[in-house]
Amino acid sequence: VSTRSERWLTELCQLLEFPSISADPRHWSDVNACANWLARHIQAIGLENVRVLPGPNGGLPSVYADWLHAPRQPVLLLYGHFDVQPARAGDGWATRPFQPTRIGDRLYARGASDDKGQLFAHLKAIETWMSDSASPPVNVKVWLEGEEEINSPNLPAFLEREHRRLEADAALVSDTFMPSPDQPAIVLALRGNVTFQLNVRGAPADVHSGRYGGAVANPLEALCRVVAGLHDSQGRVNLPGFYARVRTWSPAARKWIRSQHLSDAAFLRSIGVESSSGEYGYSAIERATIRPSLAVTGINGGHVRGDTSVIPARAAARMSARLVADQDPYEISRLVSQHLVRLKPPTTTLGVRTTGLSYPVEMSAEHPVFGAVERAVKRVWGVHPRYTRSGGSIAAVAQLHRRLGMPIVVLGMGLPSDAIHAPNEHLNISQFFKGIDTVVRFLGELRR
Amino acid sequence: VSTRSERWLTELCQLLEFPSISADPRHWSDVNACANWLARHIQAIGLENVRVLPGPNGGLPSVYADWLHAPRQPVLLLYGHFDVQPARAGDGWATRPFQPTRIGDRLYARGASDDKGQLFAHLKAIETWMSDSASPPVNVKVWLEGEEEINSPNLPAFLEREHRRLEADAALVSDTFMPSPDQPAIVLALRGNVTFQLNVRGAPADVHSGRYGGAVANPLEALCRVVAGLHDSQGRVNLPGFYARVRTWSPAARKWIRSQHLSDAAFLRSIGVESSSGEYGYSAIERATIRPSLAVTGINGGHVRGDTSVIPARAAARMSARLVADQDPYEISRLVSQHLVRLKPPTTTLGVRTTGLSYPVEMSAEHPVFGAVERAVKRVWGVHPRYTRSGGSIAAVAQLHRRLGMPIVVLGMGLPSDAIHAPNEHLNISQFFKGIDTVVRFLGELRR
Repeated sequence: VSTRSERWLTELCQLLEFPSISADPRHWSDVNACANWLARHIQAIGLENVRVLPGPNGGLPSVYADWLHAPRQPVLLLYGHFDVQPARAGDGWATRPFQPTRIGDRLYARGASDDKGQLFAHLKAIETWMSDSASPPVNVKVWLEGEEEINSPNLPAFLEREHRRLEADAALVSDTFMPSPDQPAIVLALRGNVTFQLNVRGAPADVHSGRYGGAVANPLEALCRVVAGLHDSQGRVNLPGFYARVRTWSPAARKWIRSQHLSDAAFLRSIGVESSSGEYGYSAIERATIRPSLAVTGINGGHVRGDTSVIPARAAARMSARLVADQDPYEISRLVSQHLVRLKPPTTTLGVRTTGLSYPVEMSAEHPVFGAVERAVKRVWGVHPRYTRSGGSIAAVAQLHRRLGMPIVVLGMGLPSDAIHAPNEHLNISQFFKGIDTVVRFLGELRR
Repeated sequence: VSTRSERWLTELCQLLEFPSISADPRHWSDVNACANWLARHIQAIGLENVRVLPGPNGGLPSVYADWLHAPRQPVLLLYGHFDVQPARAGDGWATRPFQPTRIGDRLYARGASDDKGQLFAHLKAIETWMSDSASPPVNVKVWLEGEEEINSPNLPAFLEREHRRLEADAALVSDTFMPSPDQPAIVLALRGNVTFQLNVRGAPADVHSGRYGGAVANPLEALCRVVAGLHDSQGRVNLPGFYARVRTWSPAARKWIRSQHLSDAAFLRSIGVESSSGEYGYSAIERATIRPSLAVTGINGGHVRGDTSVIPARAAARMSARLVADQDPYEISRLVSQHLVRLKPPTTTLGVRTTGLSYPVEMSAEHPVFGAVERAVKRVWGVHPRYTRSGGSIAAVAQLHRRLGMPIVVLGMGLPSDAIHAPNEHLNISQFFKGIDTVVRFLGELRR
């Protein structure tokens, strides 16, 4: 690894040290500090018009910068996000999540893969052009978001205000993964996401489980009955209308889709799971890409440590509905909320709040920008990229696609084994450097 | 309130300041410190043979003391517990739980009613005899436990070791409540308690809810299905054999039982609940006293704060089975564990551990000691005590009754509205002083 590469890794470690957790208000100052660090860094690279743009409605900031001195050349918008998922040492981290730790080819830290490592590869590709050729070959705009991990609640308002600033001929987003280290992939479809907060309430306060157990409603048990009713015995979401707009695929299309992805076995092996569980009649990859899901992502109520024996006054749950084309997140939000309220047991109260919405994305690879990225990938990796689907959601991709109608190249350099959103998240350092090379070449290929 | 009474309240506040939470290992040093404080206090009152007895198997300590200089007089064992339920300011406390706060006739603190206030009334009654008459009228032994709130896991071993020390003609236990401030009650029956810890595991680590949602088993949803299946549509525990040994009561007996308790409406009103929920065919009081229950007292898994979207690797739950005569806690522990393991969904693993067991208690009021307490109650409160049943469990009462076979007077001075095990626990100061008077008189009435 060259001196320059060592310096880049040191810089990336600085970026990873910010606990920029957007989901936790106690860390919002860290999100802001991280934005300021990035703005200074981008300024030093040589980009112009560097701004930390405040989020609308008091939301978290974005970072913007551009270089627009190549007349007649296209404008490429490079997107990434610098906020990260929460990480607690007690959750099973072998290293400290905000103390980046290099072990062999791996760099362990929260955000190493999702998405600081990947956005930093974009910046280092621009820096390569700046230092080797004095300027990028095309016009570039950099937009780094600070609310992606909380489902970008203020993104519609942000785009309402800033859409002119972000106008471009195409966008590049690196916030996904490749099926394997030797097989790059461009994501053409993403699932949408609607997140919900459920609150069930019983007595006004916790009550003694002996004195009152069996005689008063238990919000935890009520919540469990609601959750248990969400899926039928075939693993389908048990909610009238949920599948009404789901696009169906011909056997040939399904076969092609499967051919572009990891095998089910490899997909599951990457997270240490032996067998898939879900909707009857679909493979694991299909369940996670062309089929919607409704998952409970958290439940909390009462006490699980020690024998603090109460019938709790309240129970809370989080849920995430992952949507596919052509489901509408607003319609699903209404359907799920109304359904849950109908399931409310008579002696408890149940509240549902939608905490975030993003649209599913379906794109085609027909725009010439895909030719440019295919050539760049071929040069660096020696193979053609696959065209895959991600089960995840990137609200910014959905919004850029829907609102600005621009072609978006979703080219990830992560790996399925990166443990994003989980303990021991890491980035493969060789992926990072090949990612930089790919973006360097891609910028060159975009030149008219 | 006299100078002496003021001093007693000040002392009680000192006792209440110890966060002696037996369920939390971080507070075990406070449990020990509280035991030492009580030992010194009891020594100062004038009792002898004061000991802090270590718990067997590394368990938490008990405090013992006696005064045995009244030959030909009976020996009364006075029992209480100085460990308390957990309390966190964030749970809804209006005051600081370990900073006792007097508001009018109420003293707010964790443990004020359960059980430090009540055990302290015993000590102050003995002190009254010591200071007013130089000695108690009968022989007394004081035994204060430090593991009651965690279901007394080491009590069988403790009694194996210490049963000779605790031998007595009768016992007095104040760890329950009166139906109303003008109606004292003696509890003749307590429910037993078996507590369980459940752990459900899915993938080896949390995984991204988008990338894998719908394709891998969700331990939280599996847990909810298990919990949802625990009760049938009639509110009965849905577990073969659970009711096999439950004692049935004639309509006349049920009528008498209801006559001794609060009305259902008053019972529910005391915790701010409008309607009961539970086993079909029984009143709220019956559901909480002569019928067993199986309640989930805590669930935790994934994240409910912020949009940390994972399919969690694990989900945990606590459950409490409250038993009535003639259910056997060991048999119920086996039944429940085997049933839960059978319900285990195929793609997750489920572990069940029994964390505590105590027997239900059924006593009669035929021993002369009940005549003595009835006379004392009549003198102080002006009415005969009712004979009630508690839905709660006091492992020590069950063990003393089963193992030492002694008559036990379970005379509480708490009120249903004391919010024990809940935020804003408090003691009514007038109840405390009338409780002291009652024990003073009871000791006198015991004299042959």
